[in-house]
Amino acid sequence: MKTFVNPDRKDWKFICSRPEDDHSEIENRVLEIIRKVQAYGDAALLEFSEKFDGVKLHQLKVTEEEIRNAGNAVSADLKRAIAMAKENIHRFHEAQKESPVKIETRSGVEVWRKSVAIEKVGFYIPGGTAPLFSSILMLAVPASIAGVKEMILCTPPGKDGEVHPAVLYTASVCGIKHIFKTGGAQAIAAMAYGTETIPAVYKIFGPGNRYVTFAKQYVGRKDVAIDMPAGPSEVAVFTDGTGNPDFIAADLLSQAEHGTDSQVVLVSTNKEIMEEVLEALHKQKESLPRKSLVEGALSESRMVYFGNADTAMEFLNEYAPEHLIIASSQPDQYEDKIVNAGSVFLGNFSPEAAGDYASGTNHTLPTNGYAKAYSGVSLDTFVKKITFQKISREGLSQLSKAIEMMADAEGLDAHKNAVTIRLKQ
Amino acid sequence: MKTFVNPDRKDWKFICSRPEDDHSEIENRVLEIIRKVQAYGDAALLEFSEKFDGVKLHQLKVTEEEIRNAGNAVSADLKRAIAMAKENIHRFHEAQKESPVKIETRSGVEVWRKSVAIEKVGFYIPGGTAPLFSSILMLAVPASIAGVKEMILCTPPGKDGEVHPAVLYTASVCGIKHIFKTGGAQAIAAMAYGTETIPAVYKIFGPGNRYVTFAKQYVGRKDVAIDMPAGPSEVAVFTDGTGNPDFIAADLLSQAEHGTDSQVVLVSTNKEIMEEVLEALHKQKESLPRKSLVEGALSESRMVYFGNADTAMEFLNEYAPEHLIIASSQPDQYEDKIVNAGSVFLGNFSPEAAGDYASGTNHTLPTNGYAKAYSGVSLDTFVKKITFQKISREGLSQLSKAIEMMADAEGLDAHKNAVTIRLKQ
Repeated sequence: MKTFVNPDRKDWKFICSRPEDDHSEIENRVLEIIRKVQAYGDAALLEFSEKFDGVKLHQLKVTEEEIRNAGNAVSADLKRAIAMAKENIHRFHEAQKESPVKIETRSGVEVWRKSVAIEKVGFYIPGGTAPLFSSILMLAVPASIAGVKEMILCTPPGKDGEVHPAVLYTASVCGIKHIFKTGGAQAIAAMAYGTETIPAVYKIFGPGNRYVTFAKQYVGRKDVAIDMPAGPSEVAVFTDGTGNPDFIAADLLSQAEHGTDSQVVLVSTNKEIMEEVLEALHKQKESLPRKSLVEGALSESRMVYFGNADTAMEFLNEYAPEHLIIASSQPDQYEDKIVNAGSVFLGNFSPEAAGDYASGTNHTLPTNGYAKAYSGVSLDTFVKKITFQKISREGLSQLSKAIEMMADAEGLDAHKNAVTIRLKQ
Repeated sequence: MKTFVNPDRKDWKFICSRPEDDHSEIENRVLEIIRKVQAYGDAALLEFSEKFDGVKLHQLKVTEEEIRNAGNAVSADLKRAIAMAKENIHRFHEAQKESPVKIETRSGVEVWRKSVAIEKVGFYIPGGTAPLFSSILMLAVPASIAGVKEMILCTPPGKDGEVHPAVLYTASVCGIKHIFKTGGAQAIAAMAYGTETIPAVYKIFGPGNRYVTFAKQYVGRKDVAIDMPAGPSEVAVFTDGTGNPDFIAADLLSQAEHGTDSQVVLVSTNKEIMEEVLEALHKQKESLPRKSLVEGALSESRMVYFGNADTAMEFLNEYAPEHLIIASSQPDQYEDKIVNAGSVFLGNFSPEAAGDYASGTNHTLPTNGYAKAYSGVSLDTFVKKITFQKISREGLSQLSKAIEMMADAEGLDAHKNAVTIRLKQ
């Protein structure tokens, strides 16, 4: 880890910078994939599966039998764990429901806003060695609460043509009926534009590699909505010296194991604890199966000392971490100073892993500094908030002068006339 | 207007299609502009102003004196109109405030969500003959309620180097202190990446032409947040025969006058009223100064008859209009059937013009069918909703088995360890 001591404000931007992801080399390859899916549909998807997943599929859609078999392959313990996580995620997101509040801005001018579910959404779940079934809970549970009618899921098959049982089982308990074996940029293209088998959706969600990320950004420009721009996962831990170095090291490592491009940052107002965390890191990482990934990520990571806690919090707001852990026995004093973060973990017994899986908060969060302008996935992400107004003749007469004056000043006579003609009657 | 009678469902997609906007020809020009602003900053902006606005500026920033002069140039009547609109917009958006709701998903596991303002936002207001000062109210009022610290505004100068007084006056009463004379794609690039004079912001808002729209889509992919993808304005009017044909015609014309690319759609379950609306359209448009724009827009527009109101509402949900007017004396019966729309105007005395200016709802709305997945601008658009959690030792022990099981199944040992190490203590 690189260490900085009381860095000058002009250097913050550099210290906060994430590794630049140069898309240009993959850009053309992704565009080519998207165009092929648009032109050839399912045939293109099957060809890409052979090429990238190493398997010749006969059909894209997962069968009911495969889903039943997956249910049998998942242990009772894991099923209980998934059920508990699902329940907590449900409780947290259920509390985000809003009822329309009707107000009268003037007598006879009733205005309100109503949340209405997005009708069709698509989830992408990456394949590979770590089957991220927890992301299905984070997407499908709020989508169901919102009232989404059609949820589909795309995920790449393994070399045996199968999808991991935990993925199929979780999708099935979340009520997802349409699961397709396709991955990468081609899956994003399929959900954006539709194929013979895969229906086009209105919004696409979920994590993925650089191909998936770029494909989402591309289709998200104007063809379909996406959850948020994405980048590698990251955590920042702040400690004032009342944190526990072993816990902090464990949290940093749990982020670092996501991949060599994961970023972890430790900010502290106490030099001793920084040393202790470093020692604990070296000790703990030895026993991790993903040790090489972890070491790659740590080599790119940063430790920053500040003499002053307020400055440290300002620095963290500039960094705008996806996850922010306040490792302190008195964490409440920092809460109101946090302006830019995806999700915040307060105190020594709130590890990021709790929010990743089971405490109820969502783990689909803005990375790469996007927390300055983006929120994580929530119930809001699955609804449109439609505004309504109902104006009486009397209400309109109260607004009429203002509307007519403003329309006139903007040179829009027909706007003015739409009011005038009503009140002339 | 093209007329369709009980169109077959397979033709809905075609009838609902908007004119395709081919970006490819302007794409390279916009990218060139963006690159120049990134490389040369203010110098590039001044050069583009000479080229596109036809004026050699000496400074980009509007002076305090210019703002004072603008205040004197705006009539007392228009000031009163702006004040009334501002007050109504304030009331509607103020009611959208949320207080954090803390819940315990398990005993000792406290989770909540807090709205925190985006710190820096930028507004783009187009120039030209119609100064859209009303859009400033629609953006700056909710931004102020949200608690945004830094609002900047970019707008192109006229050939005389000045900005329209109504724009400067409105910006000033909305508390916008930094106004810059720059327009088009170059203004979007300046707000996205910053120049010597113009600070970079975290989110960019506002309407614009195709250059502005494409520039926003480009910078919005991953460099800065934007309000929403944009397209030409549009209205759909539904009437069951209890609407007033003169009012309906006036509403269609008030949309059509925005430009030849505006789209208006009339859907009805009553053939007589469709005829009457057509007649009224022809009569009313004769007296409009923007008659040629209106005729252009109308020639591309559609009238659709359905024998059945439910089918008509389904069609409208497929169209997903920016504005939807329910021209009926009994509009409430349709409210719950509306799934996809930006803003809905219920009844015969609720013209779109009311929401465009003064009833309090926001007029920055999703066009081009984006209402299927996007909401209009609201208080939400100016905040991030940050999640928090505070877990006690006892709370963590309740979650621990679920977290450990799931982390294990996802192959993430360090995640598991972050919990285990805490409970071992």
